[in-house]
Amino acid sequence: VKTPTKTIIQLITPIVTRGMRTLDEVAPFLRDDLEIRHSLLDLGPASIECEFDEALSVPDTIRKAIDAERSGANAIIIDCMGDPGLHACREAVSIPVLGPCQTAMHVATMLGHRFAFITVLDRLRPMIDKLVATYGLRDNYASFQAVDIPVLEMMNDPGKLNSALADKALTAIERDHADYMILGCTGFIDCANAMREKLLAAGRDVPVIDPIALTVHMADALVKTGLSHSKQTYPPPSMKHIAGFDMPGLSAYGR
Amino acid sequence: VKTPTKTIIQLITPIVTRGMRTLDEVAPFLRDDLEIRHSLLDLGPASIECEFDEALSVPDTIRKAIDAERSGANAIIIDCMGDPGLHACREAVSIPVLGPCQTAMHVATMLGHRFAFITVLDRLRPMIDKLVATYGLRDNYASFQAVDIPVLEMMNDPGKLNSALADKALTAIERDHADYMILGCTGFIDCANAMREKLLAAGRDVPVIDPIALTVHMADALVKTGLSHSKQTYPPPSMKHIAGFDMPGLSAYGR
Amino acid sequence: VKTPTKTIIQLITPIVTRGMRTLDEVAPFLRDDLEIRHSLLDLGPASIECEFDEALSVPDTIRKAIDAERSGANAIIIDCMGDPGLHACREAVSIPVLGPCQTAMHVATMLGHRFAFITVLDRLRPMIDKLVATYGLRDNYASFQAVDIPVLEMMNDPGKLNSALADKALTAIERDHADYMILGCTGFIDCANAMREKLLAAGRDVPVIDPIALTVHMADALVKTGLSHSKQTYPPPSMKHIAGFDMPGLSAYGR
Amino acid sequence: VKTPTKTIIQLITPIVTRGMRTLDEVAPFLRDDLEIRHSLLDLGPASIECEFDEALSVPDTIRKAIDAERSGANAIIIDCMGDPGLHACREAVSIPVLGPCQTAMHVATMLGHRFAFITVLDRLRPMIDKLVATYGLRDNYASFQAVDIPVLEMMNDPGKLNSALADKALTAIERDHADYMILGCTGFIDCANAMREKLLAAGRDVPVIDPIALTVHMADALVKTGLSHSKQTYPPPSMKHIAGFDMPGLSAYGR
Amino acid sequence: VKTPTKTIIQLITPIVTRGMRTLDEVAPFLRDDLEIRHSLLDLGPASIECEFDEALSVPDTIRKAIDAERSGANAIIIDCMGDPGLHACREAVSIPVLGPCQTAMHVATMLGHRFAFITVLDRLRPMIDKLVATYGLRDNYASFQAVDIPVLEMMNDPGKLNSALADKALTAIERDHADYMILGCTGFIDCANAMREKLLAAGRDVPVIDPIALTVHMADALVKTGLSHSKQTYPPPSMKHIAGFDMPGLSAYGR
Amino acid sequence: VKTPTKTIIQLITPIVTRGMRTLDEVAPFLRDDLEIRHSLLDLGPASIECEFDEALSVPDTIRKAIDAERSGANAIIIDCMGDPGLHACREAVSIPVLGPCQTAMHVATMLGHRFAFITVLDRLRPMIDKLVATYGLRDNYASFQAVDIPVLEMMNDPGKLNSALADKALTAIERDHADYMILGCTGFIDCANAMREKLLAAGRDVPVIDPIALTVHMADALVKTGLSHSKQTYPPPSMKHIAGFDMPGLSAYGR
Repeated sequence: VKTPTKTIIQLITPIVTRGMRTLDEVAPFLRDDLEIRHSLLDLGPASIECEFDEALSVPDTIRKAIDAERSGANAIIIDCMGDPGLHACREAVSIPVLGPCQTAMHVATMLGHRFAFITVLDRLRPMIDKLVATYGLRDNYASFQAVDIPVLEMMNDPGKLNSALADKALTAIERDHADYMILGCTGFIDCANAMREKLLAAGRDVPVIDPIALTVHMADALVKTGLSHSKQTYPPPSMKHIAGFDMPGLSAYGR
Repeated sequence: VKTPTKTIIQLITPIVTRGMRTLDEVAPFLRDDLEIRHSLLDLGPASIECEFDEALSVPDTIRKAIDAERSGANAIIIDCMGDPGLHACREAVSIPVLGPCQTAMHVATMLGHRFAFITVLDRLRPMIDKLVATYGLRDNYASFQAVDIPVLEMMNDPGKLNSALADKALTAIERDHADYMILGCTGFIDCANAMREKLLAAGRDVPVIDPIALTVHMADALVKTGLSHSKQTYPPPSMKHIAGFDMPGLSAYGR
Repeated sequence: VKTPTKTIIQLITPIVTRGMRTLDEVAPFLRDDLEIRHSLLDLGPASIECEFDEALSVPDTIRKAIDAERSGANAIIIDCMGDPGLHACREAVSIPVLGPCQTAMHVATMLGHRFAFITVLDRLRPMIDKLVATYGLRDNYASFQAVDIPVLEMMNDPGKLNSALADKALTAIERDHADYMILGCTGFIDCANAMREKLLAAGRDVPVIDPIALTVHMADALVKTGLSHSKQTYPPPSMKHIAGFDMPGLSAYGR
Repeated sequence: VKTPTKTIIQLITPIVTRGMRTLDEVAPFLRDDLEIRHSLLDLGPASIECEFDEALSVPDTIRKAIDAERSGANAIIIDCMGDPGLHACREAVSIPVLGPCQTAMHVATMLGHRFAFITVLDRLRPMIDKLVATYGLRDNYASFQAVDIPVLEMMNDPGKLNSALADKALTAIERDHADYMILGCTGFIDCANAMREKLLAAGRDVPVIDPIALTVHMADALVKTGLSHSKQTYPPPSMKHIAGFDMPGLSAYGR
Repeated sequence: VKTPTKTIIQLITPIVTRGMRTLDEVAPFLRDDLEIRHSLLDLGPASIECEFDEALSVPDTIRKAIDAERSGANAIIIDCMGDPGLHACREAVSIPVLGPCQTAMHVATMLGHRFAFITVLDRLRPMIDKLVATYGLRDNYASFQAVDIPVLEMMNDPGKLNSALADKALTAIERDHADYMILGCTGFIDCANAMREKLLAAGRDVPVIDPIALTVHMADALVKTGLSHSKQTYPPPSMKHIAGFDMPGLSAYGR
Repeated sequence: VKTPTKTIIQLITPIVTRGMRTLDEVAPFLRDDLEIRHSLLDLGPASIECEFDEALSVPDTIRKAIDAERSGANAIIIDCMGDPGLHACREAVSIPVLGPCQTAMHVATMLGHRFAFITVLDRLRPMIDKLVATYGLRDNYASFQAVDIPVLEMMNDPGKLNSALADKALTAIERDHADYMILGCTGFIDCANAMREKLLAAGRDVPVIDPIALTVHMADALVKTGLSHSKQTYPPPSMKHIAGFDMPGLSAYGR
């Protein structure tokens, strides 16, 4: 295994809406030996709030993953807390593909005891429960919390969002005995420090995971170690006719 | 809840290849009060052998499910043992959507103690393991077995296929203590009786599930009882822009 | 496997009290091709509220099951939410024997995510918890709720019962995140629709299982598919002397 | 809590066959402060080999348990590795009721890591698996082994039995990584020492539980500590009509 | 296996503070055939409240265990609810080594359904959760409760302590559905009867385990049965250089 | 959270034997922005092969951890696959403390499906099983394998060791369906590439984790992200008298 001197990470935001993710947000992580490239989808939903939205985001996410590997990326991050297409992308490429949800849940389990997942909408609860079961971490999952603030309002009043997030975190800690917080929306990118400070002020020395920051550094660590997902678990798809997905990136598979 | 006098079941085969599923195969289940309609996909893979193939089959499977509900079907069956798109389709429609894998695993657990899943390719093992975990049935899953016969050979020599299936079933019973068999490929539609007879001849009175036959009757039972999936678990998708999937069936959602 | 043109289901109510179950209650399920026969016990308890009562109900339940198979029934349902004698009856006969509790819990798990069990008495909690563990469904069991209304009062004021049931269901949904309701008493036979309507009125689109209706249709589906319990799991009892149970129906075994 | 100066343990052998259990067998455990009384059933099966047999043994086992408590016993042991009627007897009496299977499995889990259960017949496997699940010890259950020697042959050739038991124990240790042995038949009462010696001779320092010896001493320990089963878990049966079980011992309940 | 006519139990209190455990406290358990010997540590912490304290208590606890076996003890009890050094001591000696936490949790699981652990400090929650997981009893663990009274105050006002303990027990029963209570501090040695009476007065017939009383009698039962921990699980340490622990008791190992 | 421009990682090898770990072994991981410092113990065992050895290694490991934090390290790695003292060290310091076993098991679970742990001695099996349970990863643990080659022989014939390791890995893959390999001894530091190549040559594209390399990069990633263990889970020890451990590094606690 030869590790690159510079790690190139491709961040694939699996929606078609421009402007919701900017490279400014990941600028703090950049180093001389770390480059982050960004992709948006060409076909798929405007945002992801349910399994229906996820299903429509996956085909083009796979295409972007194949493109990323061909363009020299060393690792791929799917920029959504539902980890849509994680397993399918791992079949399609050999470089490590990480989901921020899986990554955050494993790190929270390692460094704490029982984690809380704090997100926007209560309707995501069954999806997250299913992810936890699939990832094998049910015994370390203490609490699901949703702030249930409309997205627009959330954007316009960050103070209100931060207060609501801290309130939910305290409930997770005090009622459900959670001891590690996961921000369950990749759009909460500036909220980790604010939540951490509010918890410390309430006498709770509990870490807060900003999943994208963590996953970027974890991807870099895996690249430096020379590890990827197992191709025994995720063997490449066999060649076959695929109707309607005959885009360049998929030309190896479809026609 | 008013139950229909006739149950209409839509069988969606989530691939684009014509001729692999014929209505002749389901003819034995038809009754005066049971109608089976069939859909193939317009876009998607030629066959399903991995998560990549599944991912590409889901968008059009959802469309066919929406079409089926609009056309008056009372229940939907996704005709593939990976249950692709099960959760997304349940969000998109209100009539019951069943996957033959989930249905067979629950019935085997109810009527036996530990089931075996016998399929074509060993590479499906991690996918099936993950489905079992998601369905919450890990403690009742005794054995995964694959015959590993190429599909063409399988088609040309049904005797060889049946012998291989029975051998794997006996291994599952004798080494892994399985006591209920699930045929893990919806293409094994004529194999259940042959396997059952071979097992009886070997002194093993172990039932064999033909998943499509079972799922058709289960769907009928749910329609007669007036039950469907919970919309608390599977709330409808919210309206939003969806790029590239603006087909008629999805017009309520995309544009 | 040859399936009958008409399904005959034997409903065994495992108590000695006449009049608590009438065939009127199952009349809505009858069809030209579905016959329901009913048995009461000759020896056993007046009602079932604990493991002691269950234990005394099982010997004669087995006898009635053997009688039913000899009289041509195609399937047997044990009409009690504790599923008393389920395993012993499956050893004694070859036709499918279903318990409404096991059936309802599996169907709720298939179609929802986490079910609630709502019954009369809080003292049943450990029994139900043990059944859930035996059935392997612990991870899908969200809530046990008891209305704790005396039986007589329950009979005399169905409105009060229905309100209490709906209140408990809302607690299960909102506090325990249940998304599928199981009526945990076979005497709640008219309550499912009322509860469903009250939940819809409260903005909760959550299905409610009437276990007898569901189990009748499930038994019919299994008969039509040609499936029964595994005799590998439930081998027939060997012949031996049995003192004190020398009734006709058991003559093959006792003396 | 006042502890008696002498512990009286009632051993209820839940079958009707005389001579299979003699007080000679428990003589080694007797002390000045420990008395063992013995009961056989008046109604029930000649032996217990399946759930059907168990079901027929439970009603009279309960009656004997009630009799024992009334006669001044301090603890009850149900002398069968299926623990038939354990929960129902605990409802019927307040003195501790122990099953040798549950007791042996918990002690093996405490003192080892993963236990093996070695018994006569392979057909008991699903019953034992279900007991393990009900007792919550699935993660500590390494191996089920059956010698499959007919009972008569077993009686006539103890050397053959002991060799077969030791062979199965070595398989459990070497293939399944068990590290504590449970003799899974209360009739194996002289076999523990022989197995232990054979294992030591094979270089395996693995303890062997004779369940009756262990359960007698455990019952004594609970009596001395003043502990019994929780009546919150096992509340007494409510008074009601019971047909066909109107024997003296049950007069408080039936009529 | 030859069992002694008198059982000698060594109670090792794994701290250096004199006077916190007196033999008066265990006097009620003494009998003609039961002797209890007591050890305190020479090096280690003044009290145990966290994993750091435990870690510092273990080396000398092992030394005291080796001493005890050499001096003729038949069993060892580590007198702390964190069971510090349980596994290491079992490697170092052949006589049974019991921890009161493991013992109490298994007995509560056997005789009840779901236990509560009631202790002094809330900070012990993760430690106890981890012990439960290691002991394989997660499914039977209903509730962790802490009175959070400073130790000095606790000593000075036993009435206040008993009221706080009973309040927490009622919360565990009524909110968390616990049905067996474990006193989670070996210093609560006089509190079991008071709690039991308060619970009975509140209509809750729930047993309360005083872990030291129980573990003394359980150790005696194991000695009488001739059982110890498995040396397959706990093989003796191999001889090697050990720096800094060259005390007499360890001379077989260190130098 | 301010992240350092250079990460300083303290590698604590928890034994007293000089020369078994050299900084040459970690040289490949060094970068301009990554410094690795190394500590050996002053008191403790010569090597770690059981829980007894671990227990004696922990007190001085804690002292070295406290020293490391005071000397400006940003993260600590305990250089032993038993992760001795992981929880106690996390109480004693605030910088992240990682164990290579926990880290490797979580990463293998994330990137594969079911991992194998391949080590030197079969006697470590119960210890590793218990670690897996404590870490909550039991469902992802496929196989424990031991080469059982004496350490000296292992050192002298690396070719023999590599062949034995690859054989065990193939058994884990083919019989136990493992798909990610963990080298279970921190002394196997040069073996990962050789095993990976042998597996590829056998047609198995399965990754192999060298735990120290991985843990170094993971510690760096956590430092860069600004995350540590939760002090809610691992609160600092309270001040108290500690006899016999009054060394400088512990002066804050002992006296």
